[in-house]
Amino acid sequence: MELLEERIRRDGIVKEGNILKVDSFLNHQMDVELFTQMGKEFKRLFGDRPINKILTIEASGIGIAVITAQEFHVPVVFAKKAKSVNLEGEMYMTKIESFTHKRSYDVIVAKKFLSSEDHVLIIDDFLANGCAVNGLIDLIQSAGASVEGVGIAIEKGFQPGGQLIRDKGIDVESLAIIESMDARSGEIVFRKS
Amino acid sequence: MELLEERIRRDGIVKEGNILKVDSFLNHQMDVELFTQMGKEFKRLFGDRPINKILTIEASGIGIAVITAQEFHVPVVFAKKAKSVNLEGEMYMTKIESFTHKRSYDVIVAKKFLSSEDHVLIIDDFLANGCAVNGLIDLIQSAGASVEGVGIAIEKGFQPGGQLIRDKGIDVESLAIIESMDARSGEIVFRKS
Repeated sequence: MELLEERIRRDGIVKEGNILKVDSFLNHQMDVELFTQMGKEFKRLFGDRPINKILTIEASGIGIAVITAQEFHVPVVFAKKAKSVNLEGEMYMTKIESFTHKRSYDVIVAKKFLSSEDHVLIIDDFLANGCAVNGLIDLIQSAGASVEGVGIAIEKGFQPGGQLIRDKGIDVESLAIIESMDARSGEIVFRKS
Repeated sequence: MELLEERIRRDGIVKEGNILKVDSFLNHQMDVELFTQMGKEFKRLFGDRPINKILTIEASGIGIAVITAQEFHVPVVFAKKAKSVNLEGEMYMTKIESFTHKRSYDVIVAKKFLSSEDHVLIIDDFLANGCAVNGLIDLIQSAGASVEGVGIAIEKGFQPGGQLIRDKGIDVESLAIIESMDARSGEIVFRKS
């Protein structure tokens, strides 16, 4: 998606350790006009699927998921990082490794919000090693629901997550795929679509 | 807001300990069509203010904030619960007590996303004791920015937060204010607007 690639080139900051900071428009401050265009693009890419629900994970996936849900006219469910003992009722649970925070945590969705009737589009802001998306796929499959696709804002194409999920036969569409990036020069090369 | 009150009556569940569960449409599963109507109502209520930014706090405020931002054509910044050591650069920080999780945590916003030029609308899903909103006000004031108002989906009118913030001269508009609720009968009484 040209608009997103341009924005990453303009406002993204490449740091040592394969870190791309896009906190000025994607995951701390959020450019909602850009999100609206991204939502329309996800609708174009997945609009022929029988999607009745969007699943994301707190916190930074929620904004994009909600705007995309407006295009699909479906509700969003966000998986929660379990930190509270205030979890009554039955939950689907999975474990996710965090690359950024260097730890693993339990992630939950209430069973009443995912069922075998559901056709789910996963939306998230980043795909790198695929830990978060794989966790969401696990939650959906625990419910016997169908994964209709995975829509990602920025994929780090030089990390294995995207390929691993595509190899499962799941349709992954990333609006910008970074082929390589260089912390010294700041250069970012995108995969040709 | 009649539509929200009706939805709370229909799908909200009152539990012992002044707990109102609205996770089927507000803060776990999110009814985005309802959020769109709520965003329009916030625009009606605050549309005459010179708002150039919306501030919320992760995670459950983000969905409503982003949809509301579409109406105002402004970006959203969400305050983050600090759990990572990966916090480079300068941050505004405040401490928030959590009623639900019975602990306090540090909440941060990068300084580059709040300045003395900003006129900020705070958006959140719940207002009860006011800890989260007071923390957000503190962050805004640390930046020398202006609080233009506070927009809340559901206020627990029998808890002190709303009154405390209004007593500071801040305009708080809650789309539904619960006067009382009863866990045994399930009855919910709304404040007349």
